Amino acid sequence: MMKILYVVPGTMSKTEFGEEELGRRKKILQDKAAKETVVDIVDIESGPSSIESAYEEYLSIPETVERVLQAEKDGYDGVILGCFGDPGIDAIREMVKIPVVGPGETSMVLAAILGHRFSIITVLDSVIPSLEKLARVIGVNRKLTSVRSVNIPVLDLRKDVEETKKRILEETKQAIEQDRADVIILGCMSMAFMGVSDEIQEQFGIPVVNPAYVSLKTLEALINSHLSHSKKAFPYPPKLEKK
Amino acid sequence: MMKILYVVPGTMSKTEFGEEELGRRKKILQDKAAKETVVDIVDIESGPSSIESAYEEYLSIPETVERVLQAEKDGYDGVILGCFGDPGIDAIREMVKIPVVGPGETSMVLAAILGHRFSIITVLDSVIPSLEKLARVIGVNRKLTSVRSVNIPVLDLRKDVEETKKRILEETKQAIEQDRADVIILGCMSMAFMGVSDEIQEQFGIPVVNPAYVSLKTLEALINSHLSHSKKAFPYPPKLEKK
Amino acid sequence: MMKILYVVPGTMSKTEFGEEELGRRKKILQDKAAKETVVDIVDIESGPSSIESAYEEYLSIPETVERVLQAEKDGYDGVILGCFGDPGIDAIREMVKIPVVGPGETSMVLAAILGHRFSIITVLDSVIPSLEKLARVIGVNRKLTSVRSVNIPVLDLRKDVEETKKRILEETKQAIEQDRADVIILGCMSMAFMGVSDEIQEQFGIPVVNPAYVSLKTLEALINSHLSHSKKAFPYPPKLEKK
Amino acid sequence: MMKILYVVPGTMSKTEFGEEELGRRKKILQDKAAKETVVDIVDIESGPSSIESAYEEYLSIPETVERVLQAEKDGYDGVILGCFGDPGIDAIREMVKIPVVGPGETSMVLAAILGHRFSIITVLDSVIPSLEKLARVIGVNRKLTSVRSVNIPVLDLRKDVEETKKRILEETKQAIEQDRADVIILGCMSMAFMGVSDEIQEQFGIPVVNPAYVSLKTLEALINSHLSHSKKAFPYPPKLEKK
Amino acid sequence: MMKILYVVPGTMSKTEFGEEELGRRKKILQDKAAKETVVDIVDIESGPSSIESAYEEYLSIPETVERVLQAEKDGYDGVILGCFGDPGIDAIREMVKIPVVGPGETSMVLAAILGHRFSIITVLDSVIPSLEKLARVIGVNRKLTSVRSVNIPVLDLRKDVEETKKRILEETKQAIEQDRADVIILGCMSMAFMGVSDEIQEQFGIPVVNPAYVSLKTLEALINSHLSHSKKAFPYPPKLEKK
Amino acid sequence: MMKILYVVPGTMSKTEFGEEELGRRKKILQDKAAKETVVDIVDIESGPSSIESAYEEYLSIPETVERVLQAEKDGYDGVILGCFGDPGIDAIREMVKIPVVGPGETSMVLAAILGHRFSIITVLDSVIPSLEKLARVIGVNRKLTSVRSVNIPVLDLRKDVEETKKRILEETKQAIEQDRADVIILGCMSMAFMGVSDEIQEQFGIPVVNPAYVSLKTLEALINSHLSHSKKAFPYPPKLEKK
Repeated sequence: MMKILYVVPGTMSKTEFGEEELGRRKKILQDKAAKETVVDIVDIESGPSSIESAYEEYLSIPETVERVLQAEKDGYDGVILGCFGDPGIDAIREMVKIPVVGPGETSMVLAAILGHRFSIITVLDSVIPSLEKLARVIGVNRKLTSVRSVNIPVLDLRKDVEETKKRILEETKQAIEQDRADVIILGCMSMAFMGVSDEIQEQFGIPVVNPAYVSLKTLEALINSHLSHSKKAFPYPPKLEKK
Repeated sequence: MMKILYVVPGTMSKTEFGEEELGRRKKILQDKAAKETVVDIVDIESGPSSIESAYEEYLSIPETVERVLQAEKDGYDGVILGCFGDPGIDAIREMVKIPVVGPGETSMVLAAILGHRFSIITVLDSVIPSLEKLARVIGVNRKLTSVRSVNIPVLDLRKDVEETKKRILEETKQAIEQDRADVIILGCMSMAFMGVSDEIQEQFGIPVVNPAYVSLKTLEALINSHLSHSKKAFPYPPKLEKK
Repeated sequence: MMKILYVVPGTMSKTEFGEEELGRRKKILQDKAAKETVVDIVDIESGPSSIESAYEEYLSIPETVERVLQAEKDGYDGVILGCFGDPGIDAIREMVKIPVVGPGETSMVLAAILGHRFSIITVLDSVIPSLEKLARVIGVNRKLTSVRSVNIPVLDLRKDVEETKKRILEETKQAIEQDRADVIILGCMSMAFMGVSDEIQEQFGIPVVNPAYVSLKTLEALINSHLSHSKKAFPYPPKLEKK
Repeated sequence: MMKILYVVPGTMSKTEFGEEELGRRKKILQDKAAKETVVDIVDIESGPSSIESAYEEYLSIPETVERVLQAEKDGYDGVILGCFGDPGIDAIREMVKIPVVGPGETSMVLAAILGHRFSIITVLDSVIPSLEKLARVIGVNRKLTSVRSVNIPVLDLRKDVEETKKRILEETKQAIEQDRADVIILGCMSMAFMGVSDEIQEQFGIPVVNPAYVSLKTLEALINSHLSHSKKAFPYPPKLEKK
Repeated sequence: MMKILYVVPGTMSKTEFGEEELGRRKKILQDKAAKETVVDIVDIESGPSSIESAYEEYLSIPETVERVLQAEKDGYDGVILGCFGDPGIDAIREMVKIPVVGPGETSMVLAAILGHRFSIITVLDSVIPSLEKLARVIGVNRKLTSVRSVNIPVLDLRKDVEETKKRILEETKQAIEQDRADVIILGCMSMAFMGVSDEIQEQFGIPVVNPAYVSLKTLEALINSHLSHSKKAFPYPPKLEKK
Repeated sequence: MMKILYVVPGTMSKTEFGEEELGRRKKILQDKAAKETVVDIVDIESGPSSIESAYEEYLSIPETVERVLQAEKDGYDGVILGCFGDPGIDAIREMVKIPVVGPGETSMVLAAILGHRFSIITVLDSVIPSLEKLARVIGVNRKLTSVRSVNIPVLDLRKDVEETKKRILEETKQAIEQDRADVIILGCMSMAFMGVSDEIQEQFGIPVVNPAYVSLKTLEALINSHLSHSKKAFPYPPKLEKK
């Protein structure tokens, strides 16, 4: 049996319908998981309700690290950091040994082998610099042809699902025609869990990477391959080690 | 049920103990696969017995493409191209729609998220340029800190398994100390199937990516995520399409 | 008159001799400042005592942002973020309009025009990845030839000043001879305030960039030139703006 | 006397008017050659009739290598690989010592010194990824501003020469105005031998690199300079060497 | 007291109103300088009246070097090379030890920390290649999103100040909207001294870097920080040293 | 008939044995040239006797431009700029339409297609930055693995030819073994005309690019291909055009 924890680095359960949404996401992940995998989901108690800026990214990190530390103690085999921007993934990796998968970096490296030029469709212009920076840190920035936003805040994405889907389709079309994208990534977990990726993929005939699915399956793949991040690359903080 | 074909782009069954080795590899893959996955293995009838040069890479491609085309017709859900250099993967992707995983590119993109600097340990100096070129084409070359060879031909790797393992350990040590590598990739499928990756990983305490395992698990992950390569990036040859 | 606040993103005043050290640093900065400049210094109340990992970087950010927000309200003309890793500078810039100078990025861009290849001498190996990432984000990574550590924790740097100086000189020598560095940056604020940069510069005959001095003088230069960071590049978090 | 062989990696003589075209090309090359140079031309017996995909590139390579091996035995001083995509040039260089010139790489490196930004005008969109990859492998990709296609298959280029020329002129205009190209390369040997490069050059007043001419003259230059490819970079396949 | 010399690498005093303009520029710099700074200004006696080509850049260098050599002998603490293209700054740095600031490189490195993507607005298309080359040599080219020209020669910029300002505003607008610039640099000293940078900055709400101001303040910052260029990077010409 | 001028951008004829050396070089070039080519040689009257710094580069440019302008008027078909650093080649190209070949850039782009990693062996450490910058401007810097100097001034190279040759061989050995170079470039015209390139090539079995030979043959190739530099990339100085 494999135990996986999906950690939402935001106070989702305190937002309207948040508890329900957490349950809905857990179910989607459990359905997608291998038979021997058990998926749990958890959010944080204080922090941003959603992440649309570097400021909110940083606010979410301290408590998220605690959640992952606890998960390791609780015997989880791996963790999915449930935000496309992978906030604080380097710090989390410093603190634990179990594999931690970031949806942003996982989606980007898979996109890099599925085609020549990928575009990310995300929520607001305010997160574009963070995502471009993320691509640069991973090292796949040469294949990132554009980041486009639908201009809808995270918490409003599900208010009018049809409108959101329409906006995603519009930006996907622009990415393909103007930026010559041949792979699309949905660049927000709330988009990922809307369940529209297969539909967009069919409509445009190019791969649409769903960060929820690929994070889960890549984490399973890492665990099955006995792989985790390098502790030489992400060492435990020296001062804390001595204690 | 998921059907996967592992295609060896060489005439393995015509080498000494080759049939036996094909069976052994199939068993290793089947054991590593998910319960619902069936793994088959096949080699080619004419071509190089092993690949240690660009010339041999090219010799292997035409018949390998035929094998993958047949696999698609036979209902396989995906294919692993069984050579670390991913020979002809662009051509294969042009010809089929089912996902085709190259061990080289898969290992490199996973290494790129497991650490900051990865090294590849491979067979002979003669394959180093091809692997450096592969990293450049994928776009993760910035994270590739070195390619090192054990200086043993592919077909001799299993002649003295202890000597081979010793040489891999020596080069791994050099990669860590001299090239500051924090992730190691075994850069040859015959090394991958020697079953030493976990041992090396334990000895040095940094991730050792086994291309056999990660190719299999990544292919399963892609199929489960309904993803394949972009046909916009790898279009069917226009002349053939008309026919 | 120009009012500048130097914000230490750590709980310096809670460490031994910390209050004294804050006063000492304030005096050094005030002496270096232009006549019309008033320099104040402040630390944070909860957070890491020093920063030697990504984890501690993130711990320091939330309260540091509050300090800078308050500084803007209090009429300060600009802020120096008093840690060489520039932790959370993107978030701080999102939240305020007054110029915020990071010692890391300021030192690196000046080093880029003073020579062809610069090295950073810092405290521990654990901060090397963060500094390499910082160089990449700023875009001057091509000119960064190495990051070397003296292998002394931040809080021990002043325990044996002569030993620390000796180690800095040793690594500087290596940087020049082995990495062909022609400019050196002291990569830690506690090193910067040890007052050894001029001495090292004289000994080796190449520029030694002191991040404390150049942060202060560059902030004065920006204020005098009516320049601050681009609010198009660092927009206020959309969700907070509406409130 | 200098003997040069132009090898067409396709079954040109089996296409309609193919024999005639081989003769025509030989004559053009002979006219352009130095007085002491003798140019011969040869195609392959089985393989693609033209190359418009990675798949067809690979199909052409095995027999092309044989042709070049034979040329070396026959005393040729050098070979031109007669396809703009330089298919298999690394393998060919592994197998022989005489210089082998690829029209693609030769045109690109000359374009890199004739201006700041070059565009390639080629046949179909399906070859664009291969040409972008080629530029990346050579290392001049920073100067490649665009690859544009006239959307006419290789074998149809000469069906309506006026229409083809019109399309080349249109894309050249776009390359100059939209992509800021200051040098143009004709990116297909069948375009090169249409004899329109001088006319386009005159019309737009910027250099138009004809891959047929520059391959021939660069090969003569290499031979006269006693230069061939590095056998350290392109070593003979180790397994074959032992035999 | 700090003595700074602003050297115009052109025969400004021989152009119409040139003497007056030299005086006007000196006054602007003196007003912007710190209280203890004395700014002098000087031009050259033979050379180009303005610099709009690589050819004119080179013409200006020999006598400019002499001016800076004399300045060092005369006890100046630092020099501003008064042309945005920083002509011959490497040669000048070889010849002297006092800090020499180039407006082009200074503006670009500051722009690199003020935002993510900067554009340069300059005089004529003919200087664009030189400025792109300058960005590449400094190493900040990744952040340079475009160089745009107002298409007005240097010596005509002040003929119709309103028209010039209008053209600068138009190109600034294009840079922001089409090239996604978030920082603007005025890429010509005659633009810098027109005194329009603050106005443009206010109008568009993004930083507008005035090369005259930032050169002056950065030179003061370097002198106050005891920094000059690396003599290891810019060694005195060996042949001249022996004499 | 083709008329080529080799322009030495230094006062060679004023150095000891300089006239003789000019004659010797002319003869070597004439012997290497095609039968229909006439090679002339000329130096400049005032300027540096040799170029070992950026400063001397710039001193040589104004009169060299005049020489090339005169050559164009005199009906020369092309010019070789006789210094490996290609000093002022951008300015020269602005002023004339006939092709101008720089030995540095020509050698580097040919080296880029002959192997994977080239090293330049040059005279003194003081010219290394200029050559690294040149590689960056051309765009082949990724393939430049090192620049090494023999530490002998230009004018002393021929004082003890055996010693010079020994030093070149030593650095070539280091370049191959330590920097993994597979192609060598002689990075100084006085080395090129020593006639040792073929000998080194034979000794080490890797290509040794002689900048004198390849400049001559590449210029002939360009002229025969009707190619010159792009006047869009190197426009005539606008101010001079009006006159």
